[in-house]
Amino acid sequence: MTTIIPSPELIASFTDIVGPGNALTAPTEIAPYLVESRGLYRGTTSLVLRPGSVEEVSQIMKLASQTRTPIVPQGGNTGHVAGGVPREGKTDVVLSLERLNRIRDIDPVGNVIVADAGCILADIQKAADDIDRLFPLSLGSEGSARIGGNLSTNAGGTAVLAYGNMRQLCLGLEVVLPTGEIWDGLRRLKKDNTGYDLRDLFIGAEGTLGVITGAVLKLFPKPRGHQVAFAGVKSVEDALALFERASSLCGPALTGFELMPRLGIEFTTRHIHGVRDPLETAHPWYALIDISTPDSAESAERMVESLLETGIADGFIENAVIAQNDAQRKALWHMRESMSPAQKPEGGSIKHDVSVPVSSIPAFMAEADAIVTKAVPGARICAFGHVGDGNIHYNISQPVDADTQAFLGRWREVNAIVHAIVLKYNGSISAEHGIGQLKRDELAAIRSPIEIGLMQRIKHAFDPAGIMNPDKVLRQD
Amino acid sequence: MTTIIPSPELIASFTDIVGPGNALTAPTEIAPYLVESRGLYRGTTSLVLRPGSVEEVSQIMKLASQTRTPIVPQGGNTGHVAGGVPREGKTDVVLSLERLNRIRDIDPVGNVIVADAGCILADIQKAADDIDRLFPLSLGSEGSARIGGNLSTNAGGTAVLAYGNMRQLCLGLEVVLPTGEIWDGLRRLKKDNTGYDLRDLFIGAEGTLGVITGAVLKLFPKPRGHQVAFAGVKSVEDALALFERASSLCGPALTGFELMPRLGIEFTTRHIHGVRDPLETAHPWYALIDISTPDSAESAERMVESLLETGIADGFIENAVIAQNDAQRKALWHMRESMSPAQKPEGGSIKHDVSVPVSSIPAFMAEADAIVTKAVPGARICAFGHVGDGNIHYNISQPVDADTQAFLGRWREVNAIVHAIVLKYNGSISAEHGIGQLKRDELAAIRSPIEIGLMQRIKHAFDPAGIMNPDKVLRQD
Repeated sequence: MTTIIPSPELIASFTDIVGPGNALTAPTEIAPYLVESRGLYRGTTSLVLRPGSVEEVSQIMKLASQTRTPIVPQGGNTGHVAGGVPREGKTDVVLSLERLNRIRDIDPVGNVIVADAGCILADIQKAADDIDRLFPLSLGSEGSARIGGNLSTNAGGTAVLAYGNMRQLCLGLEVVLPTGEIWDGLRRLKKDNTGYDLRDLFIGAEGTLGVITGAVLKLFPKPRGHQVAFAGVKSVEDALALFERASSLCGPALTGFELMPRLGIEFTTRHIHGVRDPLETAHPWYALIDISTPDSAESAERMVESLLETGIADGFIENAVIAQNDAQRKALWHMRESMSPAQKPEGGSIKHDVSVPVSSIPAFMAEADAIVTKAVPGARICAFGHVGDGNIHYNISQPVDADTQAFLGRWREVNAIVHAIVLKYNGSISAEHGIGQLKRDELAAIRSPIEIGLMQRIKHAFDPAGIMNPDKVLRQD
Repeated sequence: MTTIIPSPELIASFTDIVGPGNALTAPTEIAPYLVESRGLYRGTTSLVLRPGSVEEVSQIMKLASQTRTPIVPQGGNTGHVAGGVPREGKTDVVLSLERLNRIRDIDPVGNVIVADAGCILADIQKAADDIDRLFPLSLGSEGSARIGGNLSTNAGGTAVLAYGNMRQLCLGLEVVLPTGEIWDGLRRLKKDNTGYDLRDLFIGAEGTLGVITGAVLKLFPKPRGHQVAFAGVKSVEDALALFERASSLCGPALTGFELMPRLGIEFTTRHIHGVRDPLETAHPWYALIDISTPDSAESAERMVESLLETGIADGFIENAVIAQNDAQRKALWHMRESMSPAQKPEGGSIKHDVSVPVSSIPAFMAEADAIVTKAVPGARICAFGHVGDGNIHYNISQPVDADTQAFLGRWREVNAIVHAIVLKYNGSISAEHGIGQLKRDELAAIRSPIEIGLMQRIKHAFDPAGIMNPDKVLRQD
């Protein structure tokens, strides 16, 4: 692809669309749009556009299409794979959706909310809560992540077990195509078998096929019962046995099952204000169990008590507590959500967002631990996550007193080691964060040419000029 | 597209792939593969191939690709839109998946079953049941419908409310592409965000993008509690109020909520052996309520009793019964599943498979009833279905003593009347049956050129030669 440096005339034309206050060119104003959330990637651009309407997005894409200007859609810029930041040295134009942040409609009878793509996730959760409904998507970054980014990465989080990923939470989409045409797929239907599944193609495409500008999202009745328990277990095997028991006992009322290692508890109690170990005894592993029941508070109580009783009787649980009130429930979840930030004060951390079939988790973990600690003696493995989905954030903190930059310099090498084991268990190298730039070449290396070829054909069919978030997910040629 | 009549040499080459016993050319042998389940369409072919392996499917598609021979994949041939039968006067070759009927693996720990596309749905349900698991897809035609067809039409049925359509029940796919290449997407992962959603593109594509040959399907723990109730209500509004109450009280434990009219009860009790009206009183409408609980039999009992109590107290329910044992539960479901066959002895029936937002159901029904009975005086409307999904099978039986052929001759006219009201409520003209040939031109007429254009680009990207089930979903040009 030819690199195009937007000429002053072109910048002026784009500026005419959004108005001068929403076409940023000053380096200090542009800076926050360039850096990926973990600081691994820093892109370049000479122009950030902040359209205020879908029509403006359409006009931007029309002009981009005519002038073959690469466009990078960006939401809250909380992604972990550098999918929403511009490339380095290419002068992509950034299209920020942050001003499209209006809730268009909210319907408690139809159980839907229709929202602009730039709405912040926490604002959607709150809007649902205000009408006594639940929007279940829940992520560490929910205070700044935006719905368009959540959709474009098919976001997961802690409630996937019961409610599914973003793909399962979305009924309809509005998308501005690379040509500037607007696809109105804002349907509110639970069942609609009329042709190819365009919606699920745009969801998870990381902005490479079009710009998501609006969505119809599902709402759910709020559960009447809610219980959170925290259990110390002696092994990953026991955590998994407990998960199977919980799943069988609670069915869809099991709304969360998170695994944490002892090291994670130590990191959070050491570094995160207000976090205390809820158990007096120390255990190799911990499970956070979240149960929500629709009918009554009592049924959640019955379930959690029965689960812990049987877990202790059968020896899967060494010790456990049940949160007694909402503050205690929030404190347990706060500990879980602090797993990632608590790693920062411990130095460099090499991250993996992988999944394997649930039953393969213990074998995967044992094998990965052995090979990683051999490759990096002293490495401190802080693997945690959504064990019920088979999704582990297999993070590795640097050895104590090691050189942080030298450790982080081994990122790709360590990734290769861990991902090789993931693939051995037919797992995924990106369970929920997506591909972006970070995993693009790795994806091309591990997937069959047939599969990569199908994806390239889709990309070419939707974006023949290659202007839509180029070089993300797939390398442009 | 040029019509190609397979030459004797080409028929011989196809026959070499599957063996003479599995290449049918005699008209009597071919006949069952030509007629769509309702008899509305009858296609033509001179060759039906019955491959016995994925490799044979691949060889067939390679040869078809080289010789530009149109191929029509067919499963159990139970579809309602003529998507799986050959076109008339085109001499398509039929590729029947019926011999690919092996269960490749079943895993109670990972909760998956891996099956050939030709497995019969009821056999998959039974295999799951044998290891104490549930495969929830449930359809009237489950005794002969095959998994590949269920996937290709994104089948729905009565359990969608709690478990979703086929798209939500499938983790991975194996697909033979039009070129004969095999895409191995047989993943068993609950989370996998690595590129475009190819799986959901093949699901629901009605065999126009490739031939599904195998799938990884999700299994679920079997519920411990199961209750079925049957309630007489005075209006669709009251049925909907009862649904909202049930949904709020039971959450995901509400595993079925079906609406039936008085006329449907009369038809089934009149024509279907063994069906009796469970209530002593007659009511304008009926709701069949199915509740399944994971934890205990008692919790389902509590839920159903509490639901009926509140429904009666608030006046939503006129009268109700709870099935007392498994035989009674089966009898209630048998009545519901007989709604369609019970229409046959009443003469011609013009069918619609539509959905609207759930809250618009009463208004849609009232408006459709008024306009249909005006257009066809004496028409007997037997509208029933999955009201919790917004999906109504809006079927219209001919007036008593009317001429059946003359009545059926108004199929398109009546469709147009009903679908216009569906579209007014932003509904779908095919909630679960798909498009096939029956609704292809109507789809093109009601959807935006942008949307049809995107679908055509996908079709062309996957099947540039246009040999994959041509003229289904989209008209070939």
